[in-house]
Amino acid sequence: MSQKTAALLIIGNEILSGRTQDANLACLAKFLVERGIRLSEVRVIGDYEEQIIRGVRELKTSVDYLFTTGGIGPTHDDITSDCIAKALGHRLFRHPEAERLLMDYYPPEKRNPARMKMADVPEGCELILNPVSTAPGYKIENVFVLAGVPQIMAAMLKNLEHHLSPGQITLSKALTVHTGEADVAAALTALQQKYMQTEIGSYPFFRDGKPGTEIVFRGLNEADLQAALESLREQCSGRGFKTS
Amino acid sequence: MSQKTAALLIIGNEILSGRTQDANLACLAKFLVERGIRLSEVRVIGDYEEQIIRGVRELKTSVDYLFTTGGIGPTHDDITSDCIAKALGHRLFRHPEAERLLMDYYPPEKRNPARMKMADVPEGCELILNPVSTAPGYKIENVFVLAGVPQIMAAMLKNLEHHLSPGQITLSKALTVHTGEADVAAALTALQQKYMQTEIGSYPFFRDGKPGTEIVFRGLNEADLQAALESLREQCSGRGFKTS
Repeated sequence: MSQKTAALLIIGNEILSGRTQDANLACLAKFLVERGIRLSEVRVIGDYEEQIIRGVRELKTSVDYLFTTGGIGPTHDDITSDCIAKALGHRLFRHPEAERLLMDYYPPEKRNPARMKMADVPEGCELILNPVSTAPGYKIENVFVLAGVPQIMAAMLKNLEHHLSPGQITLSKALTVHTGEADVAAALTALQQKYMQTEIGSYPFFRDGKPGTEIVFRGLNEADLQAALESLREQCSGRGFKTS
Repeated sequence: MSQKTAALLIIGNEILSGRTQDANLACLAKFLVERGIRLSEVRVIGDYEEQIIRGVRELKTSVDYLFTTGGIGPTHDDITSDCIAKALGHRLFRHPEAERLLMDYYPPEKRNPARMKMADVPEGCELILNPVSTAPGYKIENVFVLAGVPQIMAAMLKNLEHHLSPGQITLSKALTVHTGEADVAAALTALQQKYMQTEIGSYPFFRDGKPGTEIVFRGLNEADLQAALESLREQCSGRGFKTS
């Protein structure tokens, strides 16, 4: 079993303008890592046809799964489905099941062409149900088209799991060293050279005015991770740096 | 005066894994918008040479300014400067001024090769001072290489303003409509067709269990923004939707 890869295309002027803080990247990343799928690239782009089509085409061929968030609502600036259809060469059509779901959800006085537009999806897609506000996402080829509102996106993730073929899980161990990262940089370089299959990340922080570093060991072989971590712990102990 | 554009390349496995929530995108976007510079694309990539070099080369030619965050610290996984040098065809060298700053900042017992590596930057760059922890960022060609730690990134922004040639400021006005966005979708479509130079964005929310929508009007012509907003306000009033 090999590791799988994914990319995320975040579509929305409101993210690029700084008006809205994205929360979907971290949520998707954590969901994927538990299934052996590594998020290898994320792009944030605006609600512009050319940019969306180019993003979809470039990313879908470079990974096993491409996810998009945003732009599938009822207003004029929601153009994701139209762009996905164009990018993949499919026709946009009114999906009977999506239409029925929306008709059941909205009382007659709330039904209007804008709301029903959310049933227009690329032909050949499979719907991803939305338990929060009904208007569905969908899967087409290796592309998963999801809502931008974080609680809806997260709910859709639970409903698409059966489409994913899990990869080998990347294991992770962390050691906190209570000193600046440069003090252990040489040790980390040597460990990285020794354990080439283990990815060693160094993340500095300040807490209560004191520098510290979280060292994260990631890889497929648990014994390697543990050996690298123990070696670092011993070296820190020998040099008087506290670890936890 | 025309509008300027920028892109941001966020470099760091910790963002892609969901371990760290990015805060630099929104901070940079707000800084730029006040200077008439529009953030048009953001990419998040891992600490991998090939991915960084490709990202830098692709983005720097598509915008006026490219910003990068992350990967300029002292450890083995900080490879941004090396990759920037390779991407742009410059030599990496020990910058005398950066070296002096680090020597002044660190007492002798704290100086080590890892810390001094932070003075190795592409030849021909101009340093961007870091008032938080000294190790500088820099500008080379149209690329600004900044720290990943948000408070350092934000401090560096204040020190690079003189390098930016401001663009025409995009104005923005917002109206909150206390109903679901689909209820005003047709009105928004008509307004967007009438005010082609005004970008109208529709952002739904739920507050106290009730749906609402923030409508944002963006453009260069204040009279247009105001006219579009007033027209929407009147239409909402006529249909019994509260606005604020």
